[in-house]
Amino acid sequence: MDFFFKPESIALIGASPNPEKLSHTVLESLRKMGFKGKIYPVNPGYREVEGLKCYSAPGEIEDRIDIAIFAVPAKAVLEILKGPVENIKGAIIVSSGFREMGADGKKMEDELRALLIEKGIRAMGPNCLGIYDTISNVDTFFIEREKIERPVRDGVSVLTQSGSFAAMIMDELANEGAGVARVVSYGNKVDVDESDCLEFLAQDDATKAVALYIESVGNGQRFLEVASSCVKRKPVVALKVGKREPGARAASSHTGAISGMYEAYEAAFRKTGIIEVASYEELKDACKVLNRYSPVEGKRVLIITDGGGIGISIADSCEEAGLKVPELSAAAVRKLKERLPAFASVKNPIDLTGSVRDEHYIAALQEAPAREYDLAIVSLLWGPPLLTEGVAEKIRDFAESCGKPILISSPGGKFSREMASAFTATGMPVFFTPESVVRAAAVLCGGKR
Amino acid sequence: MDFFFKPESIALIGASPNPEKLSHTVLESLRKMGFKGKIYPVNPGYREVEGLKCYSAPGEIEDRIDIAIFAVPAKAVLEILKGPVENIKGAIIVSSGFREMGADGKKMEDELRALLIEKGIRAMGPNCLGIYDTISNVDTFFIEREKIERPVRDGVSVLTQSGSFAAMIMDELANEGAGVARVVSYGNKVDVDESDCLEFLAQDDATKAVALYIESVGNGQRFLEVASSCVKRKPVVALKVGKREPGARAASSHTGAISGMYEAYEAAFRKTGIIEVASYEELKDACKVLNRYSPVEGKRVLIITDGGGIGISIADSCEEAGLKVPELSAAAVRKLKERLPAFASVKNPIDLTGSVRDEHYIAALQEAPAREYDLAIVSLLWGPPLLTEGVAEKIRDFAESCGKPILISSPGGKFSREMASAFTATGMPVFFTPESVVRAAAVLCGGKR
Repeated sequence: MDFFFKPESIALIGASPNPEKLSHTVLESLRKMGFKGKIYPVNPGYREVEGLKCYSAPGEIEDRIDIAIFAVPAKAVLEILKGPVENIKGAIIVSSGFREMGADGKKMEDELRALLIEKGIRAMGPNCLGIYDTISNVDTFFIEREKIERPVRDGVSVLTQSGSFAAMIMDELANEGAGVARVVSYGNKVDVDESDCLEFLAQDDATKAVALYIESVGNGQRFLEVASSCVKRKPVVALKVGKREPGARAASSHTGAISGMYEAYEAAFRKTGIIEVASYEELKDACKVLNRYSPVEGKRVLIITDGGGIGISIADSCEEAGLKVPELSAAAVRKLKERLPAFASVKNPIDLTGSVRDEHYIAALQEAPAREYDLAIVSLLWGPPLLTEGVAEKIRDFAESCGKPILISSPGGKFSREMASAFTATGMPVFFTPESVVRAAAVLCGGKR
Repeated sequence: MDFFFKPESIALIGASPNPEKLSHTVLESLRKMGFKGKIYPVNPGYREVEGLKCYSAPGEIEDRIDIAIFAVPAKAVLEILKGPVENIKGAIIVSSGFREMGADGKKMEDELRALLIEKGIRAMGPNCLGIYDTISNVDTFFIEREKIERPVRDGVSVLTQSGSFAAMIMDELANEGAGVARVVSYGNKVDVDESDCLEFLAQDDATKAVALYIESVGNGQRFLEVASSCVKRKPVVALKVGKREPGARAASSHTGAISGMYEAYEAAFRKTGIIEVASYEELKDACKVLNRYSPVEGKRVLIITDGGGIGISIADSCEEAGLKVPELSAAAVRKLKERLPAFASVKNPIDLTGSVRDEHYIAALQEAPAREYDLAIVSLLWGPPLLTEGVAEKIRDFAESCGKPILISSPGGKFSREMASAFTATGMPVFFTPESVVRAAAVLCGGKR
């Protein structure tokens, strides 16, 4: 599997100078990503594509091909694989028109599988977006960066069957200033599946945590083994969708069996130590927080705000999520009162009010004893006139020294998001509603476990 | 109460040319809002403020004052109210330093209450932001528009004790292209409370629906009466925060009693027909959807997407929220198959796939029989190359003719939000995650009821 994530050469099968072709966007994606290896366009109709020598078939390339991206119609994929393709190690088949199209498509997919085995080629897809990889600088996504933003480099890798899901979460993470390590959209899983990818990511130093979007798992036993072994090395979160299969929509007489299926997934997550999340929003929040922090042992949350209402909303959400907002010890309250101005409310949540200054946040963090909580949520509304962007670096410095995760909540619109970018610039995860910061906290506290 | 919402004259007590004063921002807010009535600055230290004649005391103004905004320290509020203030009908006391500051502040607030009764003045606050009103063009908020955006005119009115909550939800609604009718932040409720405002809004033609953020209700019996009567005329949604009072944090021995309190609120919501929401996010989603649609009788949801994964996530969220995603009738499936291309998956959720064109959305809406669902969720990913912004107007036209609510989901980042603005421009509510569109749908289906 290594060649998928450390490729030195990529062939683009179906390469074309026509900007309306998917392959054209793929070439653009690879180039904008700054892929450093060799790129070989393949198309019998051209001698040259976008300044690169174009080959009429992959067999003509006098080089090993780590990844051959197939961006041609389903039938052409099969034709090409029947020819000389011995130099191809891995294929990413973005083409649709296979199993998802019904019986005829399924037949073609079976033929594809047989051909891949015969030729000894590992393959992702078909019907997928492939790989977006901030470490190897590979981007095989055929959606323009104008439409789907690409997140910066960070520690979480995302595995997903659904291409639309991959695109949606990448776009939104980028929009919120968060990053990823590697994203794999493996579509119909004719060969490579979640377990293959997870096995690679378990050993991958660039991946600090893994987020899984699962519609179905093929080989349950293998998944259990691989997941258990991955969880020993790094946190894994999973969203199971189609819980009651409304998408696949079996006959209603099958509902019982299908619902039982979901319970099997739930049990598997519990058994392997995978942190299950309940929604797309929660998976996204998990990605953001796991880029920087590891799960904690307890569930005690310290809340510091400059708006009473928000503090109460965050505390409420914590209780809903099974987290604790414990009272501070009398000794802690005494120390906090010494350092904080009279207008501050020295409880948990600590409310610094609209008269807050940057240094009050730091004083509150410094004087709340770290042994009394497992993680802290620091919420900033930017209305208070004396609050500045400078608070971000000071909080980051404290976060680095204190050893407890500090999550930032910065609810609101344009101005709030601009100010929050001072935090994302320091690598701290920022959340934009009271509930989202608590979803992230709950993931660090082990989710449903 | 009318003079608060249809004022012809506003006095600004504590007016100042100093841009660092709250009062300066209030004057700016009133002017940027385009308030058409008279504005009287009051401050003995100036003859003129920002081009307006300045009075040394409210009694000197030879006019009835519908709203006197007090933007002076707590003690000065009391001093001024002891003087000649017979021409003041309503006061908005934005000043803090009263009950929220402890025993001394509470004493001052009691004195304030007595003075208001003695002088026959109705008052909002203290410790509040006051009124943001898109009908009367009043904006008494002392936070600059650069920091907190102001939403456009629409149908939902918001009542809240918490100023930070008012600011946060307004900022985010504006950022998402949604509007409001009137927003009241009434703070410590020395006089005007949620029931007074609700009574006005019940009769207010500009208010189509009411959203309540409640920390506590003073007079429970009155609230029950007013709320019941309001619900008969228009939908009311409520978020109760401090459910287990972690903000007010009583001694832990009192927890039982306090938790019982929340159950009393729950019961009151059920009894009056108020739709209870569980979170800030849900209240925001409720505001967006109630600007355009009224609650429906059933819980059957039709889902139309161009991305399989998103469709499944939306369907899952529906099931979680107690909504139904029923199978379409055989007759409907037959008709849909005739009108939709072969690549489309004709189930509920209907998946138009990445090959979708604008007209496929319309065909799907037209051929799904309205009697088979109570509301429709239309989800658009903007990656598909043949999809255009033009789809928004076509869907809006259909929505107007079909009589069922149609909610738009447009997940993703920058590009998605730009495209989505084609919908907000037509007045259609747009939601940016699979879960948020379902939260809105659940509100229309009556929430927990």
